[in-house]
Parts: sequence; C-alpha cells; structure tokens
Amino acid sequence: MTAGSQITVLGLGDMGSAIARTFVARGFRTTVWNRTTARTEPLVEVGATAAPTAAEAVAASPLVVVCLLDGTAVDQVLASVASAVAGKTLVNVTSGSPAQARANERWAREHGAEYIDGKIMGDPPYVGTDHIMFPFSGSPTAYETHEPTLRTLGGIAYHGEDPGAAAVEFMAQVAFSYELLIGFLHVLKLVRSEGFDVAAFTERAAGSLAVFPSLLNSMAQAVKSGEYGPDLGSLDVQAALMNDMIGHRAAQGVEAVRMREIKDLMDRRIAAGHGDQGFSSLFELLPPQA
Amino acid sequence: MTAGSQITVLGLGDMGSAIARTFVARGFRTTVWNRTTARTEPLVEVGATAAPTAAEAVAASPLVVVCLLDGTAVDQVLASVASAVAGKTLVNVTSGSPAQARANERWAREHGAEYIDGKIMGDPPYVGTDHIMFPFSGSPTAYETHEPTLRTLGGIAYHGEDPGAAAVEFMAQVAFSYELLIGFLHVLKLVRSEGFDVAAFTERAAGSLAVFPSLLNSMAQAVKSGEYGPDLGSLDVQAALMNDMIGHRAAQGVEAVRMREIKDLMDRRIAAGHGDQGFSSLFELLPPQA
Repeated sequence: MTAGSQITVLGLGDMGSAIARTFVARGFRTTVWNRTTARTEPLVEVGATAAPTAAEAVAASPLVVVCLLDGTAVDQVLASVASAVAGKTLVNVTSGSPAQARANERWAREHGAEYIDGKIMGDPPYVGTDHIMFPFSGSPTAYETHEPTLRTLGGIAYHGEDPGAAAVEFMAQVAFSYELLIGFLHVLKLVRSEGFDVAAFTERAAGSLAVFPSLLNSMAQAVKSGEYGPDLGSLDVQAALMNDMIGHRAAQGVEAVRMREIKDLMDRRIAAGHGDQGFSSLFELLPPQA
Repeated sequence: MTAGSQITVLGLGDMGSAIARTFVARGFRTTVWNRTTARTEPLVEVGATAAPTAAEAVAASPLVVVCLLDGTAVDQVLASVASAVAGKTLVNVTSGSPAQARANERWAREHGAEYIDGKIMGDPPYVGTDHIMFPFSGSPTAYETHEPTLRTLGGIAYHGEDPGAAAVEFMAQVAFSYELLIGFLHVLKLVRSEGFDVAAFTERAAGSLAVFPSLLNSMAQAVKSGEYGPDLGSLDVQAALMNDMIGHRAAQGVEAVRMREIKDLMDRRIAAGHGDQGFSSLFELLPPQA
C-alpha cells in the first residue's frame, strides 16, 4: 500500500479529521464519513471524498480507519456497515478497553473482515509527526500488509496478535503518567506549604528524572527474575525514612496515601524476613497476588 | 577553607565513614569519633585521627560534620558536646525532619555555634563524586565560609536560611521518587496480568519519561500562576478516559487508588465549571486547601 492507494476514515472529530487530513496530504485517495455531514466539508475542500453513508465509505477502500467518540459509537457504526466489511481491514483507533477491542475483533471476524486495534498517545496537531505514538495489535497479516500506510500517522509499534494488547499498552503507559503526575501535584502542595517556589523546585525535580530510566529497567529485571537486591537501600533503612516522610506530610496537612501504603508494604516484607531486599521486592505483595 | 584544613566527623556508619574517608583523601586533617571505637580503625589506617570522646573530636576542628543514625542519636551526641561547640560550625547530615533541623539550629545558637543542616541524596560509594547530591540550609555566613569544603562531598545546593529547608527539599524529592516508583510497580502488575513482558514494557515506559521534564515545568508554571490551560487535554475528555482505566484495573484485580482519586478530583473540577481546564488544575482541590 503506497501513496495513491485508497483509504477510508470513519469519524471526523479533531483526531479523525487530523488523520484524514494527513492521508490526503500524503497523496492517499481518501474517503471520509461523519455522522454530522458538516465535519466532512474541510476535508472535501483539501481533496477528500465524502461518502453519504458509513457503509458507502467502507465500500470505497480496502483499509478503513475508525476514529469515533467511544465504544458505543463504534458499536453503532459497525452495525450500520455489517454488510460492507467482508474482505476489508478495519483499523479502530477509538479509545476503549482491551475487552472492547477483543469484542470488535470477534465481530470483524464473524463478518469476514480483518481487525487491527490502535490507540493514540498524543494530540491531533501531531498526527503525521514523530511526536505522536500509535500502539497497534491484532491480525498480524493485516498489520504486515498495512504497516507502511499506518506509518503515515506517526510513531507506530505492534504489540502482538491479541487485539486487546494495544489498549493494554495505552492504559499502562497512561496510568504510569497519571501516577507520576498526581504524585507530583501532591509534592507541589508539600513544598508550597513550606514556602518553596514551586517552579524552582520543579526544575530540580525534573532534572532528577534523568536517573529513572536505568533505575526502572533494573527494577523490572528484578521483578522479572524474582531476585531482589537492595535497590534504593534495604527495606530496613527505607522504612525508617518513610516514617519521617509520613510525619512531615501529616504536620503540613498534605495527604500521604502512597507513603502509608509503601510503609505498610515495607513492614509486611520486613516481618516476612526480607528486610535486606529493596523497593522492587514490594511487587510481591501487590494485588493481584500470584 | 582548603585542603590541609581541619575537619571533624562524628559518626562512622557507612555514610559517615565514606565522608571521613573522602576528606582524608582530599588532604584534610580529619578527626573522627564513633560510639563504638572499632569503626574508627579503618579511618586511622588511612590517616585520620581518632578522638576518645565526641567532645574532644569537636574541640579539634572548626568544622564538625555530624552523620548519625537518627535524630535521637543526634540529641544524645549534641548533649555530650555542649561545652565544646561554642565558635564551631556544625553540619548535620543525619536524616530527619525539617522540625528536627530547626530544633538543632536553636540548640546550636543557644550554645554559641553556627548550624547548617544537610541531607544526602545518594549512597555512600558515591561520596566525593557528582553522583550524590547534598541539599544544605541554615546559616548563610557559615555556608559561604565552608562551601568549598562541603563541595568536596559531591553535588551541593543551598536552599536558604531556614534550617529545615534542606530536609523539605530532600523529603519532597524523595516523595516524588516514591510516588513514581510505587505507581510503576502497580502498572507492572497490570501489564503482567495481561501477559506482557515486564522488562520490554519498562523499556518503553522508561523511554517515554523524556517528555516529562518540559511537561512538569509547564505544569508548575500553571500552578504558580493559577492559569490552567488544557494540559493533557481538557478535564471533560480526560475524565472519560479515567473511567476506562478504572474499569480495566478492576477487571484485572489491580488497585486503582490514584485513578479513582484523579477521577473524583476531575468530576469535582468539572462540576465547578472548569471542565475546559487541564490536569494541573486539580492542584486547586488538593489538601491543604488555601
């Protein structure tokens, strides 16, 4: 599949419009459809073809990108194109859960279509650049066929045949970001309560992020092997530090949910005779237990 | 103060020993004391002088570094040197709270000594290198006088006259690390429960940390100014995503404490008419409230 090939985009919100516009700009013969027709007009102006129904849009191209509001919208639109999808490849980049992706794949298979699930890590203005990342998963043969086309959208990665894998990757990466960011906001409350300048503190905290890639990789190796060295120091030492931190936060009125959780996990790990191990060994106590 | 100058180190645990050894190696005439004398022997072998009592060790040098197990040990040792500290500068790098640092400073002032509080971000083998960081705070004149000597220890930074500021910096930086790391471990549980390789996932997650320095700095600017743009997208959009993530984690048996907290904060912010703002605006709802 190369420029000049046919592609269809269903759904022209900000993201769907950015995707369709990128395909048009790269020379694809692009067919678009949106529930409210007005959203098709800017695309038609730059050279896309608007289809009057989703089924006609699907019929126009072998590769169909689905980018809708949510899983409910996907269910409705797929139902309306059921008679048109046989032999097509559906690439659904609508946000949703791994379970939804797996259900969509079953539906596609039952209707004679190939299914690739995708998620989007980035914002519409970055479609077509390296500043946006699309994890994909699902049919390996369809992915191999259409990889050059999908590469048009930005950074891409294939996470395997399980159609839910792209959603898992997305949710895990996004969760990691939110964990970091909500913790950061609570820390800003702490330093502001002590009279620190939040911007100056943040420059220092942002600078210290440089140590984390190697630390995270070594912790993941410990989790994978189950062999836990004293990373960040032994739990015996860290637990005493955690008490200081909980006390300080209580004194300042700053929440300490994670610090209390960590202290509790450390105490349990120490009581089980693992006080010589490090932080990564707390993994063994987290739900779900093996 | 230059090499050849006199310095005293009280406390020869792993960290105190590394500090004393570094001063000896840089040519300081180093006096050491430890509650259990055996710990002085390796230092004496390389050229340090062991004092029989803490008071005699303090009397030997104008600058005294205190590196003990905890605040209780500091209280005991300071009480034993009360008659010897007048005119000296105490640099206490024992772990402890901002309140303990402020109490130590009052004690030093009442006994005619200058006080600098320090905390240690790093491990003993890195003393004397750029891979360890010492935040300091307290007497500005004493800090100015002894900065060249303190620079012997590694990276240093001065956080102001409040003797508690170094401890605040330390606790805030360390808390940020623990927030990131416990969130990371929960995310590893999520991806392992879905059959992902934790090491391969971590390489990708570690790679995406590169976007955070600029994101954190822009969020801190928003917090500082109180002007919250739609960072990470509007709260209206993010709240829907958070529901997907909570549902997914519940399905996998993975805890969702922070995700639920974030969703609750987003809902409250949206209900107050701020759904067009971004993630950083959640700061306004965190305890302690202004």
